[in-house]
Amino acid sequence: MTIKVAIAGARGRMGSAAVESILAAINIEVVAVLDYKYEGKYLHGTEVNDKLGGVPIYTSLANLAAVEKPDVLLDLTDPDAVFKNAQDALALGIRPVVGTSGLSKEDIDRLSDLATKGQIGGIIAPNFSIGAVLMMKFSAMAARYLGDIEILEMHHDRKVDAPSGTAVKTVEMIREVRKQHKQGHPEEKEHQQGARGADVEGMKIHSIRLPGLLAHQEVLLGGTGELLSIRHDSFDRSCFMPGILMAIRTVMERKELVYGLENILE
Amino acid sequence: MTIKVAIAGARGRMGSAAVESILAAINIEVVAVLDYKYEGKYLHGTEVNDKLGGVPIYTSLANLAAVEKPDVLLDLTDPDAVFKNAQDALALGIRPVVGTSGLSKEDIDRLSDLATKGQIGGIIAPNFSIGAVLMMKFSAMAARYLGDIEILEMHHDRKVDAPSGTAVKTVEMIREVRKQHKQGHPEEKEHQQGARGADVEGMKIHSIRLPGLLAHQEVLLGGTGELLSIRHDSFDRSCFMPGILMAIRTVMERKELVYGLENILE
Amino acid sequence: MTIKVAIAGARGRMGSAAVESILAAINIEVVAVLDYKYEGKYLHGTEVNDKLGGVPIYTSLANLAAVEKPDVLLDLTDPDAVFKNAQDALALGIRPVVGTSGLSKEDIDRLSDLATKGQIGGIIAPNFSIGAVLMMKFSAMAARYLGDIEILEMHHDRKVDAPSGTAVKTVEMIREVRKQHKQGHPEEKEHQQGARGADVEGMKIHSIRLPGLLAHQEVLLGGTGELLSIRHDSFDRSCFMPGILMAIRTVMERKELVYGLENILE
Amino acid sequence: MTIKVAIAGARGRMGSAAVESILAAINIEVVAVLDYKYEGKYLHGTEVNDKLGGVPIYTSLANLAAVEKPDVLLDLTDPDAVFKNAQDALALGIRPVVGTSGLSKEDIDRLSDLATKGQIGGIIAPNFSIGAVLMMKFSAMAARYLGDIEILEMHHDRKVDAPSGTAVKTVEMIREVRKQHKQGHPEEKEHQQGARGADVEGMKIHSIRLPGLLAHQEVLLGGTGELLSIRHDSFDRSCFMPGILMAIRTVMERKELVYGLENILE
Repeated sequence: MTIKVAIAGARGRMGSAAVESILAAINIEVVAVLDYKYEGKYLHGTEVNDKLGGVPIYTSLANLAAVEKPDVLLDLTDPDAVFKNAQDALALGIRPVVGTSGLSKEDIDRLSDLATKGQIGGIIAPNFSIGAVLMMKFSAMAARYLGDIEILEMHHDRKVDAPSGTAVKTVEMIREVRKQHKQGHPEEKEHQQGARGADVEGMKIHSIRLPGLLAHQEVLLGGTGELLSIRHDSFDRSCFMPGILMAIRTVMERKELVYGLENILE
Repeated sequence: MTIKVAIAGARGRMGSAAVESILAAINIEVVAVLDYKYEGKYLHGTEVNDKLGGVPIYTSLANLAAVEKPDVLLDLTDPDAVFKNAQDALALGIRPVVGTSGLSKEDIDRLSDLATKGQIGGIIAPNFSIGAVLMMKFSAMAARYLGDIEILEMHHDRKVDAPSGTAVKTVEMIREVRKQHKQGHPEEKEHQQGARGADVEGMKIHSIRLPGLLAHQEVLLGGTGELLSIRHDSFDRSCFMPGILMAIRTVMERKELVYGLENILE
Repeated sequence: MTIKVAIAGARGRMGSAAVESILAAINIEVVAVLDYKYEGKYLHGTEVNDKLGGVPIYTSLANLAAVEKPDVLLDLTDPDAVFKNAQDALALGIRPVVGTSGLSKEDIDRLSDLATKGQIGGIIAPNFSIGAVLMMKFSAMAARYLGDIEILEMHHDRKVDAPSGTAVKTVEMIREVRKQHKQGHPEEKEHQQGARGADVEGMKIHSIRLPGLLAHQEVLLGGTGELLSIRHDSFDRSCFMPGILMAIRTVMERKELVYGLENILE
Repeated sequence: MTIKVAIAGARGRMGSAAVESILAAINIEVVAVLDYKYEGKYLHGTEVNDKLGGVPIYTSLANLAAVEKPDVLLDLTDPDAVFKNAQDALALGIRPVVGTSGLSKEDIDRLSDLATKGQIGGIIAPNFSIGAVLMMKFSAMAARYLGDIEILEMHHDRKVDAPSGTAVKTVEMIREVRKQHKQGHPEEKEHQQGARGADVEGMKIHSIRLPGLLAHQEVLLGGTGELLSIRHDSFDRSCFMPGILMAIRTVMERKELVYGLENILE
């Protein structure tokens, strides 16, 4: 059976990479694009025009659903749009697969209720990189035994914010299992302000910003006489594609909303 | 309740570190030493003498058991001695905690049968470093998703054998879950023999030997556009102590033999 | 003064990146393109057409020189073409800046003679990445003191050859200063063939090939109780551009041929 | 010719390691120990007693010089003692080799004058690890080309001070050649205070403190599309010994004071 996917955000950088990946995947096809303009036109690669043979563009999810009958709505737009799209999709019996970290706890709970009531799957993932999600998951598993933890996150110098969302998310996942305690020397002295990094939940985050860098994170867990380091390097946007395909396949078998790719990894 | 521990191999480097760690631990005490000589003498730190106040030395486990009634026999001797010690311990109702990678499948099965029949716990661990065991466990978990894997193991140049036992053990754990396939370029050319490392179960192991190094291993798992690296650095023999203490505590609650520290980590 | 540059290989991937970099640079301009076809046409970005305003294309260096009077010929074509181009350039009083590792010792000597006779500069560089060249240079400098050396080179799994040219070149540079001796344990045993890597000039090279990787090399130098590691990560073709611009500026001040970017770094 | 060395601080941890290294070295011998007590006794390994055959202990450098006629005074005591010892040594025609970072600019200048007047060598080194010194030297050399720099220094959590002296010294060496500029995104936002580390001379230092760690530093230098990383791991006090032996040999050939091991490396 082939899974029919509609994509919102298909003209963006992530979206067009996703279209390409799905076109190359087995048993998944792109049947329609949801956009805020270009109703009635077609998407061919990254170009929009009138020629048949591309993917039809709709500006209404209801119309799209009526004609194309997708199984899944892959939404790669921004936080403002995704909530309404996901809500509408669930109401129409379409499974949402959403890539965003911008939804509030309340939004997620509401979508979760809708999915459970409708007995229909949904997946919301702040991060579709399988490697990054494994890094976070393993760090949390190890923190039970190696509870002294510092995180290095390294990005190009065009990134404005520090620390990164992934570093903060990692700390939040670790906090659930780590025995709380004060790290470092009890009388530690910082002769230059900031040397010891940011204290987040009793752990330390250090944000490096350099030209040349892409997106990297290393979690260091220290124990008696040993160090465990779990590092993820993201070299290319393509690293999100296997996670997106896995989510599309998995959402078909679910009857509830899942938040976080880590919860569909075994 | 305090757990009473007898130690075999207490005069060795690992053994004397273990004695020290147990002396500093809560609710565990060293009640006797099993040795092949020095019957009736006492161990004080690393010194053997006649002064009371040290740990009494026995050359017979039966006598030791009759007098000191230990709960656990921690065995840090060599592969030749451990099988008999563990067998005797189980027969005497003492739980063996054994650090060795030298037992055969048959030996382990026999000890396992004894433990099950006697409804008594036992733990055999080729590696007591929690960090190293987590590295192996996580590598195997990740291999399901990131199946292209190369291992770097780095040791001081006084190590004769390559690859290391830990690297081979890691590959064996990964093999159980990794989808078999050929890694690398299908027409790969090695212009200098050995450049691409050792092929073990379709994965690659590279052994580095340099003065200065201690014991380090890094498992590299590559995926589309990303790399996950799991590294363990062992700086000091003390890294084995938390695992030994954990095994001593855990073995009290078991009624069967457990092989591998990974199977008592959650 | 603005340096006038003609480019051979401008339509290739490296060439078009170079054209863009030079257009953005101060005091350097692209005045012409040397190609084997498209005589009389113009290059606009990556497109060739008849519109004025682009860079004029020539198929003869003599004609190009007569009309455009370039100071420098930047040659990013393949080894087959570069020797003749460089020879012709020197004869015409144009300074060649060539990116290739494919020239023979004899070819380099002949070009060197021509440059010296003509009292004109030329630069041939197997590698224009400043970071990579510094890694090699520092490794050679350190090898005098830390002579036990292993190299890890890591590339994507579309690379056919192992070890990489950069790793071999690094070993050659180190060999000049390293005191020859046998590394590792004298009775070292390789239980799995290839584990200890390729022996090149008494040092070891390990080649890692994984999907996701780009181009990385780490030189490990071990000493008593310490390790020095010099690593270069090449994330993007753009890493060659600063070296190309530096070579173009430097070649104007030379009156002889220089081989290797390391010889124009201070 | 054998170089005769007197050692101050021979009973300390560094000193006793130095005595051992010198005993094993060719053409260097320990002829006397300078101490603040134990006059007339002998040092045998780490024990002080009256038995002949050990190294004679003196509490006066003048007496020591008159009897033992050392070529070099290796001083591994604390900052309070070293200045006077070095001054006295130079006055007596003995070449001081001093391991300290605690001398003021004025102290160093005064010793330098004395050495130059007496036409006698002296070496003061804040760090005798050749690997660490090369890391600093190479970082400064590379900073001319790759001027965006962040430093990670990693130590065990028993270290009170952050950042480390070596990290600050590295920044000072780099500052001499680095073109001053603001690193990172111009509108950078630190959502958690300290995330971006300590700003020292426009570069960033991040101090990691974890149990298990020993002493490690990594200098990251970013450029367009590339990263150069220079890392030093110090695993053991023995890493200082080759530098001490090199200094003892080199000081014999000098006729002035040298500050910093980097200035006797080629």
